[in-house]
Amino acid sequence: MHKVVTVDIERDLLEANRTLAMENHGLLKSKGVRSFDLMGSVGSGKTLLIQRLSERALSRGLRVGAITGDVTGDDDMRRLSVLGIPISNLNTGKECHLDAHLVEHALEELPLEELDVLFIENVGNLVCPADFPLGADKRVVVISVTEGDDMVRKHPMIFRESDVIVINKSDLASLMEVDTAALEADARRVRPDADIVVTDAKHRVGIDKLASVLGLP
Amino acid sequence: MHKVVTVDIERDLLEANRTLAMENHGLLKSKGVRSFDLMGSVGSGKTLLIQRLSERALSRGLRVGAITGDVTGDDDMRRLSVLGIPISNLNTGKECHLDAHLVEHALEELPLEELDVLFIENVGNLVCPADFPLGADKRVVVISVTEGDDMVRKHPMIFRESDVIVINKSDLASLMEVDTAALEADARRVRPDADIVVTDAKHRVGIDKLASVLGLP
Repeated sequence: MHKVVTVDIERDLLEANRTLAMENHGLLKSKGVRSFDLMGSVGSGKTLLIQRLSERALSRGLRVGAITGDVTGDDDMRRLSVLGIPISNLNTGKECHLDAHLVEHALEELPLEELDVLFIENVGNLVCPADFPLGADKRVVVISVTEGDDMVRKHPMIFRESDVIVINKSDLASLMEVDTAALEADARRVRPDADIVVTDAKHRVGIDKLASVLGLP
Repeated sequence: MHKVVTVDIERDLLEANRTLAMENHGLLKSKGVRSFDLMGSVGSGKTLLIQRLSERALSRGLRVGAITGDVTGDDDMRRLSVLGIPISNLNTGKECHLDAHLVEHALEELPLEELDVLFIENVGNLVCPADFPLGADKRVVVISVTEGDDMVRKHPMIFRESDVIVINKSDLASLMEVDTAALEADARRVRPDADIVVTDAKHRVGIDKLASVLGLP
């Protein structure tokens, strides 16, 4: 019996989340804010990619904001605070993903009228965020070559849900004995129409290409 | 109302899991099998650590088995199959952790009478497995220096639930500009009585120490 109830509640929750995500999306559109939901494991490089993309956007006169999501703490917000941009930090408590309701609250805190671009950093893992769109224009999954070569095969769901797939820390690929072309092929199989970008955020490689894929000037 | 129902179901599920975990533990004890639940992000090195520990145990005449858990696929089982040991592969579908019920089924498939040691590889992430003990003697969380230096602060729960904390890929620490001593200090703060072991599974560094901490000859 529990199983049936759980399934119903899950369906309700996912539907409620989708409705709220559409509301978030409508709000962001009405304010002229382009938004991106960055997902990926802890340490895949989401925060540094947001920093690099933000630096690039700021240098082109765009106004940038961010939402950082973690189970607990504000490490990512503090890392991004060097940018001097408005940031809202979300703690999920025990949940392994952001949801549209949490993001709705973060949007209330941010000066949307004064933003052109919003980066949302999801909680770090490749499982949970997949089912919960937040209302962003594009969903971006970030993997790092240091995670090995099997993460696409192990987590097809999140790749299927993503518009953009980033293979980061490419400078370490040969050291890690990981073939980025094989990772790309895996990703391509799971999500044939996604944009796939290889980056090395630390050394600012691939950032222009990623910005272009995200439709940023 | 949904919230209340969800909370009740969650409590029921966690209690049911704990009961089953105790049953698994009793079964494993009765068969004289020592068991270890390895948790950690995708790519932290759980599979290779299990391989190294198994090689060491096998060379000492111990009989080893494994359970590999993933959302989908059998990559880890195939990697461990070089050991020629009995392995049961569990797929969780969409769940981001193993639970005691799944492990109970895997135990039915394994020749427990013929095993001395059982390694259980949990689904790769630092959030979900924490709440779900499986019945193993010790819970082991594996982090890799390639994940950065903030994963303990971001995921205190799973460190609190772990008896052993492994800091892996130590050979890459200086390259990644990560201070393993700082990671150790973070881990120590969250779980003062845990055993902390620094390893480089690729180059077989720290494996003897880890085996000793696990009580393996």
